[in-house]
Amino acid sequence: MHQDHTVQQIDELLTQSQAAFYQYKNLSLKQRAHFLRTIAQEIEALGDELIQTAAEETHLSEQRLIAERRRTIFQLTSYADAAERGNWLEARIDTGNQLSSPPKPDLRKLLVPLGPVVVFGASNFPFAYSTAGGDTACAFAAGCPVIVKAHPAHVKTSTLVADAIYAAVKKCEMPTGIFAHIYGKEFAVGEYLVKHDVVKAVGFTGSYSGGRALFDLAAQRKNPIPVFAEMGSVNPVFLLPDKVAAEKQWIAEQLTKSITQDMGQFCTNPGLLVGINNDDLEGCLQELVAGVAKIDAHQMLHEGIAKNFKENRLKALGADDVKLLYESKSGADGAKITIASVPARSFLENQQLHEEVFGPFTLAIICDNEEQLHQVAHALEGQLTTTLMASDNDLTKLVALLNILREKCGRLILNGVPTGVEVALAMQHGGPFPSCTDSRFTAVGADGIKRFARPVSFQNWNNQYLPDELKDENPLNIWRTVNNELTKEKINNPNNGK
Amino acid sequence: MHQDHTVQQIDELLTQSQAAFYQYKNLSLKQRAHFLRTIAQEIEALGDELIQTAAEETHLSEQRLIAERRRTIFQLTSYADAAERGNWLEARIDTGNQLSSPPKPDLRKLLVPLGPVVVFGASNFPFAYSTAGGDTACAFAAGCPVIVKAHPAHVKTSTLVADAIYAAVKKCEMPTGIFAHIYGKEFAVGEYLVKHDVVKAVGFTGSYSGGRALFDLAAQRKNPIPVFAEMGSVNPVFLLPDKVAAEKQWIAEQLTKSITQDMGQFCTNPGLLVGINNDDLEGCLQELVAGVAKIDAHQMLHEGIAKNFKENRLKALGADDVKLLYESKSGADGAKITIASVPARSFLENQQLHEEVFGPFTLAIICDNEEQLHQVAHALEGQLTTTLMASDNDLTKLVALLNILREKCGRLILNGVPTGVEVALAMQHGGPFPSCTDSRFTAVGADGIKRFARPVSFQNWNNQYLPDELKDENPLNIWRTVNNELTKEKINNPNNGK
Repeated sequence: MHQDHTVQQIDELLTQSQAAFYQYKNLSLKQRAHFLRTIAQEIEALGDELIQTAAEETHLSEQRLIAERRRTIFQLTSYADAAERGNWLEARIDTGNQLSSPPKPDLRKLLVPLGPVVVFGASNFPFAYSTAGGDTACAFAAGCPVIVKAHPAHVKTSTLVADAIYAAVKKCEMPTGIFAHIYGKEFAVGEYLVKHDVVKAVGFTGSYSGGRALFDLAAQRKNPIPVFAEMGSVNPVFLLPDKVAAEKQWIAEQLTKSITQDMGQFCTNPGLLVGINNDDLEGCLQELVAGVAKIDAHQMLHEGIAKNFKENRLKALGADDVKLLYESKSGADGAKITIASVPARSFLENQQLHEEVFGPFTLAIICDNEEQLHQVAHALEGQLTTTLMASDNDLTKLVALLNILREKCGRLILNGVPTGVEVALAMQHGGPFPSCTDSRFTAVGADGIKRFARPVSFQNWNNQYLPDELKDENPLNIWRTVNNELTKEKINNPNNGK
Repeated sequence: MHQDHTVQQIDELLTQSQAAFYQYKNLSLKQRAHFLRTIAQEIEALGDELIQTAAEETHLSEQRLIAERRRTIFQLTSYADAAERGNWLEARIDTGNQLSSPPKPDLRKLLVPLGPVVVFGASNFPFAYSTAGGDTACAFAAGCPVIVKAHPAHVKTSTLVADAIYAAVKKCEMPTGIFAHIYGKEFAVGEYLVKHDVVKAVGFTGSYSGGRALFDLAAQRKNPIPVFAEMGSVNPVFLLPDKVAAEKQWIAEQLTKSITQDMGQFCTNPGLLVGINNDDLEGCLQELVAGVAKIDAHQMLHEGIAKNFKENRLKALGADDVKLLYESKSGADGAKITIASVPARSFLENQQLHEEVFGPFTLAIICDNEEQLHQVAHALEGQLTTTLMASDNDLTKLVALLNILREKCGRLILNGVPTGVEVALAMQHGGPFPSCTDSRFTAVGADGIKRFARPVSFQNWNNQYLPDELKDENPLNIWRTVNNELTKEKINNPNNGK
């Protein structure tokens, strides 16, 4: 339907992005927030057409898509609120003293936008981590123009949402170049964008291979740029003995939902369970199999994902000592919901089993004892999440395990499931490599804005030339750290300027 | 004097770093702060020996070294204060609600240390950006063990300071592996450290070629790690017409000091002046030459730096249309303080002239008009600092120039000089590439701690198992963002846990 953009077209669009940046960065937080809220309204106004188009393109249920649209709108409006609140700017003021020796300068710092940001959306979140998703909302909030590469698996959906953004650009009288929507089935299009001199940062949600490739391209540039790639993980769930003994039924119910929801096509899908071999664990896994057996396999997001799933599932099932506990009937594309198990020793010896099988595949690692549980924990790669199903007794006994697991992930869940990523400031969605390319930032929650901003200090500037956020009188009434103390007070004795 | 560490020795030390990390990360902010303050005391206790050793190794004056020691101690103690104050932890709490549908989890987030950090010190700051310098202080404050590679140009100084750190480790009963001091003249030693699996981040201060090499190694790892490399810049100073007309004498005095101090061996040394051709600018440059002519050339830090300076100076002077305005008599190593000028057109055509000549070399770019001034601003690479010598009239007239320059640097100075980097929270020392490998962080000021930390969220944890920083009762009395509001209040209605 849409032809790939040519190099000439992309160059033209990026020249517009760059020009728009020099205007957009100077707009007030209020104006940026209004723009984000208008995008939310325009998406809402797309109505049923958006849901139906996405359902056709992704095979996700309408119910799920309606919930995801709600989430997308909440992201846009709550990041707008956060942008306006201004805490993310990390405004700092150290007042000067011309009389000290040497004179102490007046210093005032805040975060400013990096510049044009390229966003690669996720196939599994056609709204919330795609065209007007979390990365786009964060970049706009930070003051950056956005260039979205339309996801080839849901081009029509992406185009509808892009049109909503264009409508908001017009309504809010934003500079035209603030948003560009680029078509490209070929990897070369993404490559060209990431290597382009105008582009100053990249947001990506998807596979390890895709994320790593973009990270490498960006790092090899003459002027490297930051790439925040969220690349998923296996999200281990530790089933600790006392908890399993007491609540195997409840645990199995929680996991059944989490593993099968939307054919397990979540980056936080629990792909590994880890427990100590005993009758309780066996009973818990039997309950899980019984629960999962009630769920039908559905068609996956697109053919490529189904193909990879089937291949990777077979590879895992073919590994030494892996035992199939359950597989469902095939969905329309041949994908089967699958539960398997493997002794910890074999897991530890086979790096392939540590890798994500994106989709409804969960592998239970059976440890002989606590020592092996620790070995498995140590051997884990970086994860978005790690979950403990644990009683107070378990936790008291396994403090050392917790000490290891905290190093392995961005979010530690107690007696819950990793799927369902709340949009909140206290959320961390990101973790040590390979779950993410920079564990110091989050993809979800308003702290994600900081991925696309950097600090600038103003030294000895007259009040009138400072950004409003740093002016003596604090006209925006934001929180600022003044001489090391957080306050909303104005500056009374500035001593700044000459 | 010291042999390079062998691979076996390094492996052993890093195994100890890793073990120490699992203990140190759990110590309280108070204990970390006490450790930093004890290091400061131990450095103080080294007395004259430290100053004399450094003076011999670096040819810097005792007066300068005494001031630098004071700065180093202030860094250690002020980062200790900041660590304890806890604002840098970015503690966030979003209280849950089990009654909402779906239930809203309790989420609590704070920054945790990345793991063992390798620090490469700077030759031009044997104390403040070396063994116990800013990077080391930030990493310890964050909760990370530190591995310092001794700078080959001041090994004895580095060893003395390392001994002070070892003494503090002992006094504070810290885990032994928390600090390691590694000798290595060969680049391979640094390479081995940066590629080592135990190492989780790198701090570097030095040349572009060194920083870029380490950045590339770290990015090419199986698990890439962040490298914060501060690589210097040319720190352009824009001399705007109205200001020059009114205060050429004052400007010349300021620049004379800034350009010649310690033989210009600062990453913030003003290497470029940019002005519009007229009699006032010419007069200002004449005053500058007259001022600089009163300063004698001194011996540079070490032979390698002197050799590079002499070569790069000659290369710049040999470029088309570059005109020598002044050169001093040779110092002991043959280095000459140098002022030159070049027409803007020739500067714009010759990328070589945009590169730093580390040492006392300053190039004045002479523009025909305002348009050329803008062209030069646009053509600048990323800088640590940019300075404007400007009156109110200039600023009103040149708003567009300011809009460009803000994109080019980490710190914007009005009517001052870039040298003299205040240690303060509102300082930004870092900037767009190539001045730095990640413009989102600072090397100076307590915000530098965040280079070595990442957020972790705790979902649905019982209060008793949470870190003190996140407990309901806020026992450390730190600032936290609770349900989007900054507060020191305790949590009354947690609804957390099962």
